[in-house]
Amino acid sequence: MRLAQALFAPRAVALIGASGDARKNTARPQRYLRKHGYSGRIVPINATRDEVLGERAYRRLADAPGEIDHAFIMVEDVESALEDCARKGVAVVSIYSNGFADAGPAGAEREQRLVARSRTLGVRLLGPNSMGVVDLPGRLALTVNGVLEMEAPPAGTTSLVSQSGTMLGTLLSRGAARGLGYAKLISVGNEADLGVGEFLELLVGDEATKVIALFLETVRDAERLSAAARKAHAAGKPIVAYKLGRSALGVELARSHTGALAGADAALDAYFRACGIVRIDLLETLIEMPPLLAGKKPAGLERPPRISVVTTTGGGAAAVVDRAGLHGIELADMHDLTMAGNAAGYRATLEGLLASPECDAVVAAVGSSAQFHPDFAVEPIVQARRGARPLAVFLTPHAERSLALLAERGIAAFRTPEACADALAAYFAWRAPREFGDAPLPNERTRSGSVPELIRAPSPNWFALVEALGIPVAEHAVVHAPDYAHRVPYPVALKRLDVEHKTEVGGVALNIANESELAAQAYRMGGGRLLVQKMEAGLAEAIVGYRDDPVVGPIVLVGAGGTLAELYGDVAIEVAPVDETIAAAMIERVKGLAIVRGYRNMPRGDVAALARAVAALSRVALIAGRPVREAEVNPLIVKRDGVVAVDALVALKE
Amino acid sequence: MRLAQALFAPRAVALIGASGDARKNTARPQRYLRKHGYSGRIVPINATRDEVLGERAYRRLADAPGEIDHAFIMVEDVESALEDCARKGVAVVSIYSNGFADAGPAGAEREQRLVARSRTLGVRLLGPNSMGVVDLPGRLALTVNGVLEMEAPPAGTTSLVSQSGTMLGTLLSRGAARGLGYAKLISVGNEADLGVGEFLELLVGDEATKVIALFLETVRDAERLSAAARKAHAAGKPIVAYKLGRSALGVELARSHTGALAGADAALDAYFRACGIVRIDLLETLIEMPPLLAGKKPAGLERPPRISVVTTTGGGAAAVVDRAGLHGIELADMHDLTMAGNAAGYRATLEGLLASPECDAVVAAVGSSAQFHPDFAVEPIVQARRGARPLAVFLTPHAERSLALLAERGIAAFRTPEACADALAAYFAWRAPREFGDAPLPNERTRSGSVPELIRAPSPNWFALVEALGIPVAEHAVVHAPDYAHRVPYPVALKRLDVEHKTEVGGVALNIANESELAAQAYRMGGGRLLVQKMEAGLAEAIVGYRDDPVVGPIVLVGAGGTLAELYGDVAIEVAPVDETIAAAMIERVKGLAIVRGYRNMPRGDVAALARAVAALSRVALIAGRPVREAEVNPLIVKRDGVVAVDALVALKE
Repeated sequence: MRLAQALFAPRAVALIGASGDARKNTARPQRYLRKHGYSGRIVPINATRDEVLGERAYRRLADAPGEIDHAFIMVEDVESALEDCARKGVAVVSIYSNGFADAGPAGAEREQRLVARSRTLGVRLLGPNSMGVVDLPGRLALTVNGVLEMEAPPAGTTSLVSQSGTMLGTLLSRGAARGLGYAKLISVGNEADLGVGEFLELLVGDEATKVIALFLETVRDAERLSAAARKAHAAGKPIVAYKLGRSALGVELARSHTGALAGADAALDAYFRACGIVRIDLLETLIEMPPLLAGKKPAGLERPPRISVVTTTGGGAAAVVDRAGLHGIELADMHDLTMAGNAAGYRATLEGLLASPECDAVVAAVGSSAQFHPDFAVEPIVQARRGARPLAVFLTPHAERSLALLAERGIAAFRTPEACADALAAYFAWRAPREFGDAPLPNERTRSGSVPELIRAPSPNWFALVEALGIPVAEHAVVHAPDYAHRVPYPVALKRLDVEHKTEVGGVALNIANESELAAQAYRMGGGRLLVQKMEAGLAEAIVGYRDDPVVGPIVLVGAGGTLAELYGDVAIEVAPVDETIAAAMIERVKGLAIVRGYRNMPRGDVAALARAVAALSRVALIAGRPVREAEVNPLIVKRDGVVAVDALVALKE
Repeated sequence: MRLAQALFAPRAVALIGASGDARKNTARPQRYLRKHGYSGRIVPINATRDEVLGERAYRRLADAPGEIDHAFIMVEDVESALEDCARKGVAVVSIYSNGFADAGPAGAEREQRLVARSRTLGVRLLGPNSMGVVDLPGRLALTVNGVLEMEAPPAGTTSLVSQSGTMLGTLLSRGAARGLGYAKLISVGNEADLGVGEFLELLVGDEATKVIALFLETVRDAERLSAAARKAHAAGKPIVAYKLGRSALGVELARSHTGALAGADAALDAYFRACGIVRIDLLETLIEMPPLLAGKKPAGLERPPRISVVTTTGGGAAAVVDRAGLHGIELADMHDLTMAGNAAGYRATLEGLLASPECDAVVAAVGSSAQFHPDFAVEPIVQARRGARPLAVFLTPHAERSLALLAERGIAAFRTPEACADALAAYFAWRAPREFGDAPLPNERTRSGSVPELIRAPSPNWFALVEALGIPVAEHAVVHAPDYAHRVPYPVALKRLDVEHKTEVGGVALNIANESELAAQAYRMGGGRLLVQKMEAGLAEAIVGYRDDPVVGPIVLVGAGGTLAELYGDVAIEVAPVDETIAAAMIERVKGLAIVRGYRNMPRGDVAALARAVAALSRVALIAGRPVREAEVNPLIVKRDGVVAVDALVALKE
């Protein structure tokens, strides 16, 4: 593959703006390429020197001899450098320089012009604002990241794609200190051209890569990343992601830092789940988890997972188990063993558990021996025949040599009980990417028209749209002055059709018993065109919503109605569309809907009908052109038999 | 202080059961005492040898010359060893041997006998099942914990009291690797005699100790620990605790492991808060947090805390800020600085923030320079004049030398963004120990009697008890067949008085409109003695509860009524009794009660009356002898004006 070769295994690299001052950042790529044994040609370009750090340099790229596959641009005039590269036939340029989308609207425009020009020229871009790429097995250290000051960073089978250049250094540094190496590491910068999704595709085709780790501040191309994640899954390459933006404060910071759109974090969760990407919360888990995933497929358990624990340290094992319990993991059994003089017994116990159908994963907690007798302490673990179950090791002391021994053998080891427990929970929560089968919009025309017709109508009736999607709605009629005639049975509700927040402006009257009351209320509302609706009662109220998230695209949510969804954030979210099976699983996750699931012997509601309604609303994602920004059925009354929508709100995109 | 001296600075130590085989655990105390430079006399006692590891040994303690302050018992026959110690005038014995409360009911009885005998003999006990004590400044390594294999563990100003012996090793090991030392470390084992609370008292009097860290699996003497924590606060010595048992699985494990009672984790939270103990969740925070607390007092903010961030690494700082946001911390400002060639500017910025009234704490995030240029990277931080604000440093790379430089200067440094953010949150959540002033039981006699009388009544009327405590109750009367006469205005509810779960057995009838309906319902319930109650309606239902927790003692809780408290765990808990101010703060924390706090322009309920009711029920803790195990007012109707209890349940202790 031409692109992959130019990026990761270029025959020659031009360093445009290479500094002759070894202390400068712009001198680093040259120093690091040499230090780590890059075998291709290095071509420093410096406008004022013929020699840089003892190597022959050129004033202009045009002067440099031979073909050049990859250029690293570190000068302010990126535009001219790009032209030079194109003329020289350079396939890909990595741009360290910033001042583009990272620097406000003017910079964003500059970036757009740069990309347009690069497409014309046929040159691919990494960055701008990228720290470059590293290929450890290939000894390419084309980066300004100071982490490459280290001696001989270990090569490994995990590749990292990072939206933060400094975090690339963090992961490499911390991994190396404990023997966990990387294959490729890419700082994607602003992703003006080459983005996370395309790098994922490249890594799917990379033999050295077994697991892919992502450090994300935002998601810039959800569709491409999603498609690439599916390819990675098909190729047996698990993906684990850390994404900033768990808190509103973090979202705001990422937005101001990257200029990216702000999506809802829960939508991101749903997105990663649908893509088969394992999301973790503790930064260190991003370093520690890959060996747990390598070569594994999602467990796909339909019941609470069970772990077996082998331990030489009560307190350490308890810290893991306690945290695991918070994730709903159960304890199959706990084996308190000594290792001293008992290596064979320890190993036999471990092998038995790793092959046992009684547990879904095995934790080995090792105490102080891991610090002073690393070989002895981890030998029986390293020697144990690996079974079907994943193995996670937690070392209680400071024990880098033991961590390295385990890393060498591809055994997942954890420095903290929390990372260990969280990684197991993330492993168990991991699912294969969801396939979006054919789920067409309902074809039948309702009395008001088809879904596309209703969307395009000049003053749309959202209630009719909901009905056309296949969700039962309360019997209703549009009525007019002076007589407000209708056939809806009393008692009814009367609602204004011309305002959005009806309740707040007195635009809703409930429990109207007869015609004269109706006329009085209609008069109070100013008359005109009004909606009469049959009063409905049921066991509970639910909210069902659809949103075209600016980051991840269409999502569907279901929650308990009333104030619960908002007060408790008690909603389940998935990428839309969903089928009824997934919708039913979503409903299970909503705590407040326990009251229709048979909680405390309360009467059961029609959960299947609710699931049908969730699936139906989610199909808004299939309307051609995705014109809907948001749609909400609230409340949807859940009855013993069936559900019925009582109010609906739809907002189209501008 | 005689006890402290015998424990931590004994003039002579007897090692009862010292092994001549250097590889055995029982040889360790002798090896470690020598290795780490203990200056007192070491007296090995071995039933079969006159020499142990090259030192003069004695067959019997009685044979050993001179006075012995402290004995470490490592033999099975602990009882005989104790007698020997008493005869020799040993002040305190540390017992490594197990087979006591750690080994089931028979062991627990053995332990009780041992303690009784030790009290008769006037010998204090550490353990059994203790790994011993370490005093680093004093060079006493009287322990079997293998962590003492290390060379020259650094002395520090934090002391650790640990219920897990192996965790003592974990903390010492991990701290030492990054230059964070300890003063004293104590493995308390089963706490048969000397417990966590008494050790806390000893550490309050210890000049070398500035901060106290606790690793807890349970709390065995909540009152003593609470009192000791107050003394520590008065002495300006903050306490930070990690406690297992966050999950039900962890609680169960701790129970089976220690034989201790299982309390509710939320009650533990309330207990630590009331004691002024900082509770943290990530194990590593227990190592990292003490420098942040040393010399500090609780900030006591009444608004969301604000942090300022100085960073050389966008991604690293964002990870801290994102996590801090989850704790409700706000960002005052973010300063993206380079350190290279800018030490003075960096330092000036940091000093400005540390003295600024605009923020409550400062975070410095340092990138890759921390790994390869530790002096350079942390110099401006170390040099900066410390201000009133706490400073937390997060180092993104593997940077142990930088961590050590910061540790040397007493600056809190964190390996992970999560520990950094969580430590700040814990610091801000820290409050001075709560003073329990005089809050006597109400004195007035209600028509049914006083609180103590009502408790002692042969068939108690809990509704009357609640009223006597000062909580308004629905107007009610006890009625009898055949006429069920009463003066309660209709509509009323009718309830059976002879069963607990009334609703489930048809023992409640609501909305009874008149006498004939009442008679019919009473007949249906089987007649007899029934309760008639005025029907009450309000804006919301609340639940107010009291419980004498088996671990921490009296607690009071308030939550939203109906199914919310249970489905969402949406309750606020504090140690009882509470005054109305604390009760009001509890109500603020209950999400579901937002609906009476003016949420979405809903009518406000009488929150002050609800607070009075919470405070009133909490005074059950003051009833002499604490006869009540549990008391619950559910529902308590919250009205625009006042509250009224509609049902109550009280359970006395057996």
